[in-house]
Amino acid sequence: MTETKKSWQDISAAMLKHREQTIAAIEPAIPDPPKELPLNVTGIPKQLLPAEVISITETPTEKLLQKLASGTLSSTDVTKAFLQRAGLASKLTNCVTEMLPERALTRAKYVDDYLATHGKPIGPLHGLPISVKEHVSMKGLDINAGFVSWVGRIAPDDALILKLLRNAGAVFYVRTTEPQALMHLETDNNIYGVTVNPYNTALTSGGSSGGEGALMGMHGSCLGIGTDIGGSIRSPAANNGLFGLRPTSYRLPVGGWSATMLGSEHIVPVIGPLSTSLDGVKVFMKTLIDQQPWLYEPSLITMPWKDTSTASLLRKGSDGKRKLRVGILADDGVVKPHPPILRGMNTLISKLRSHPDIELVDFPPYKHEEAWRIISSLYFADGAAEEREAIDASGEPWLPLTKFIITDNPNVKNLTVSELWGLTQDREGYKAAYTQHWNTVNTGLPGPEAKAELRVEAMAERDKMVDVILTPTGPGCAPPHGCARYWGYTSQWNLLDYPSLVFPTGLKAGAEDKAEEGYAPRNEQDKYNFELYKPETYVDAPISLQLVGRRYEDEKLIEALEMISEVAGLPYKNQ
Amino acid sequence: MTETKKSWQDISAAMLKHREQTIAAIEPAIPDPPKELPLNVTGIPKQLLPAEVISITETPTEKLLQKLASGTLSSTDVTKAFLQRAGLASKLTNCVTEMLPERALTRAKYVDDYLATHGKPIGPLHGLPISVKEHVSMKGLDINAGFVSWVGRIAPDDALILKLLRNAGAVFYVRTTEPQALMHLETDNNIYGVTVNPYNTALTSGGSSGGEGALMGMHGSCLGIGTDIGGSIRSPAANNGLFGLRPTSYRLPVGGWSATMLGSEHIVPVIGPLSTSLDGVKVFMKTLIDQQPWLYEPSLITMPWKDTSTASLLRKGSDGKRKLRVGILADDGVVKPHPPILRGMNTLISKLRSHPDIELVDFPPYKHEEAWRIISSLYFADGAAEEREAIDASGEPWLPLTKFIITDNPNVKNLTVSELWGLTQDREGYKAAYTQHWNTVNTGLPGPEAKAELRVEAMAERDKMVDVILTPTGPGCAPPHGCARYWGYTSQWNLLDYPSLVFPTGLKAGAEDKAEEGYAPRNEQDKYNFELYKPETYVDAPISLQLVGRRYEDEKLIEALEMISEVAGLPYKNQ
Repeated sequence: MTETKKSWQDISAAMLKHREQTIAAIEPAIPDPPKELPLNVTGIPKQLLPAEVISITETPTEKLLQKLASGTLSSTDVTKAFLQRAGLASKLTNCVTEMLPERALTRAKYVDDYLATHGKPIGPLHGLPISVKEHVSMKGLDINAGFVSWVGRIAPDDALILKLLRNAGAVFYVRTTEPQALMHLETDNNIYGVTVNPYNTALTSGGSSGGEGALMGMHGSCLGIGTDIGGSIRSPAANNGLFGLRPTSYRLPVGGWSATMLGSEHIVPVIGPLSTSLDGVKVFMKTLIDQQPWLYEPSLITMPWKDTSTASLLRKGSDGKRKLRVGILADDGVVKPHPPILRGMNTLISKLRSHPDIELVDFPPYKHEEAWRIISSLYFADGAAEEREAIDASGEPWLPLTKFIITDNPNVKNLTVSELWGLTQDREGYKAAYTQHWNTVNTGLPGPEAKAELRVEAMAERDKMVDVILTPTGPGCAPPHGCARYWGYTSQWNLLDYPSLVFPTGLKAGAEDKAEEGYAPRNEQDKYNFELYKPETYVDAPISLQLVGRRYEDEKLIEALEMISEVAGLPYKNQ
Repeated sequence: MTETKKSWQDISAAMLKHREQTIAAIEPAIPDPPKELPLNVTGIPKQLLPAEVISITETPTEKLLQKLASGTLSSTDVTKAFLQRAGLASKLTNCVTEMLPERALTRAKYVDDYLATHGKPIGPLHGLPISVKEHVSMKGLDINAGFVSWVGRIAPDDALILKLLRNAGAVFYVRTTEPQALMHLETDNNIYGVTVNPYNTALTSGGSSGGEGALMGMHGSCLGIGTDIGGSIRSPAANNGLFGLRPTSYRLPVGGWSATMLGSEHIVPVIGPLSTSLDGVKVFMKTLIDQQPWLYEPSLITMPWKDTSTASLLRKGSDGKRKLRVGILADDGVVKPHPPILRGMNTLISKLRSHPDIELVDFPPYKHEEAWRIISSLYFADGAAEEREAIDASGEPWLPLTKFIITDNPNVKNLTVSELWGLTQDREGYKAAYTQHWNTVNTGLPGPEAKAELRVEAMAERDKMVDVILTPTGPGCAPPHGCARYWGYTSQWNLLDYPSLVFPTGLKAGAEDKAEEGYAPRNEQDKYNFELYKPETYVDAPISLQLVGRRYEDEKLIEALEMISEVAGLPYKNQ
């Protein structure tokens, strides 16, 4: 008796069929989009879905939470609305691995009954539908992490983060796509294919949490869970005009996710929120950390969430007002950002420059190319043996961006322990130098290039130091599919383990963003990026930026963005 | 022309001569001890040194700091007194690698002048002499870390911790011994020989910070710096009747120490204080953390020191008083402690049991033998290649306890990255299980053995949880030289990264601690330990115990010991 092994194509077909069935199970049925679609599909839901669905799904996250907590909206109605819109988003952008209408509505009913019976909400996320990247375990469901050979791995339990979010009242209703090996800044795998950007379907939604990005760009979710080791929360947040936070490591629980390289801690992957609103990011962080996740996951830091509503973490100006010192790092010195990004930077800077509560400081990059050497050497310390095995086991093809980061990456080697320790020392040495760089940018102390001994006067100059860095999220807006080949603007902060928060400027790329003429590229990466840019390629792509804080200053980072948004009048609209 | 390589014996002789010269440079000259000495040499200083020296060196650390800050005592006088007593301690216990009279007195004069000029102290450690384990870099001095072949390595700069302590006013005056490879719970190397226990010179001072231990047991220092990856602060603290804290990792800066395996982070070594008083431990921690060391060493956690003088971290009883829940772990289930240790535990427990502000809870061990398998597999992940090279380079002999922990240790292997990740997962799995164990010991929640899913109700039961664990510091008091072969009572907390604080009960081992008769040992280690015990071997050995807290609760741990000391009337005296 011969057992025939299923081909990878058969496995993919079965998963696509399953997804179709879960979408078909949503009531009322999700309308099919027209065959002929514009590149920008974000307007389609308004044409096809009821006004009530549009209204609910476009309510800001914090307002939705208020209405759910008070019973003004039922969780059942809100969940139904997001199921509708997410189902349609899936048809338009291919961002979903499966819908969970039955689970979600059963849960929503429980939540509604709880409020009716107890007269109070379950917790701060009472009744809110939350979307979840596929590799975060949901009990009884597939956790393939984007590998065909892993299809059929069934999660034995919910990931810790889901338990804590559920404790707070959340409803899980949809699971979202991710790329092969979870290591592209795009989203493409051999099970579900390519996830596209709703603002311009010829562009990528970003990755690896690109399913979350496209879904939320379509307002098919207002709060979701992504993961990030090189930009995987921030790239999709940026590409789809969302807020996305890569928290400092060991603040949120990662227990129960499905991935290669479990046990590797050389570069620490993190989990974090994407949201259509900054308040969504904040409530996500606070809700999880208020539950003392270190009681369950011992690698987490025993560090309560600092409540900025009661105590500002920012420095005060001489008039007693908050005065924020913002470092400006517009260009990392390796790859020059495209014109739309620089327009976004300049627009915001021009608003901040004149404000009395803000001080802008030039923040030069410090050896960002060295950061990439270190981090790309530490990503796959076993020479990517686990990824190779997981891909080759099914015979699925290696996708171009998987080749880019693994086989074409000269830094990927099966390291000896001794080599690993050497690179770890390089990492810590670089981090120490960057810390000194931050300490000294505005303080007159000797910087990391000074060969002098380590000086310990920094504390006294603390008040002169930059609070946060304003910087691009990438070398351009969402690039065309297959072209996200420069990670430096996000991976830089993974190496340093600085919290980094992406936000939309509200601006969109367009014809006004003329290509620079006569530019002489600095290197091959810069040349690739420069040649990628044509204004017509990027039409409607959201222009997003990134705010970066010091390690463990996640709360202050959020507070700083609140202040910047207020004083600079974000978001903007194209003229 | 042939260059003759110096033999390891010649190198050792030169270092011993150098030490002798630095002791001879102290004024007035250190008296030579009598040729015939009792086993307990702690009484010798009173016979040989002036009353003023005895008085200063036996002043509690916190009182000394007050007198120095107010100018009641000059730093010069205090430094001279400690130079005297440390020089004598060296002659009696072989605990010093070199004395630093010139540096120290120059610094003391600076400190005294500062107070005279400015009318205020430099900082919280104003003028206090602090002793330093040899491998903590001092600019311009040898940093051999106990390897003969490393003799002649000169520190290019001071370790960060020394800079911060100096900022606070400290004076460095003596450097102390450590064992070969820094990996014995004793102190013996081929440069300086064996450091002995001042209470009973046939016993070990412990290690690896055993120079600190013996020096402080002789009152040749009141506050010093040790390092710990398996018990190296706590074993010498316990063996010499001292306070010693292994802090949670990444709270104090380790930058600038000399050691093998730099870049290894599988088991994180820490630096911390030993002191003759609990207040010494506390002021050390607070002084360093108040200087925001994370501004200089980026691996450190941005976690301010919580000041327990203004806010108690302990739970309050119903009467508004502090009520402390103490877990009792008297026996780790692997090696049964000797009778003196159990007497120490029982004496303290009997005082605590009747107190209304204390609740005692049985805290069973959870798989401590598995903890040893994991930690001893992760200590030398390169198969101890660096230690082998450092030892063999000079031809110095492998000492028995180096063989014990490296060549005779079946868990030492040159790991592949993949094996390393597997062991790291084992480590995190064990830590998660132990956390659940702690969560559930007194709360009625399912423990780690329950096959149920991870439950997240623990937070609600937080008030029922044990605050701190009271446990032995080892399977006996200081053992005879060469016999410290069970690390479990200390290494357990390194693996879990729980802060652990050793304290003296004030009791001493003696004839009253009869050997148990007819005991059937559980295993080879237990048999070894059982057979080691004879009451006459351990005469006068201090009986110390250990208090263990949850990760990052260093401040609460110290506060708990303050409370226990007060309500239980520590220290005791033998009847």
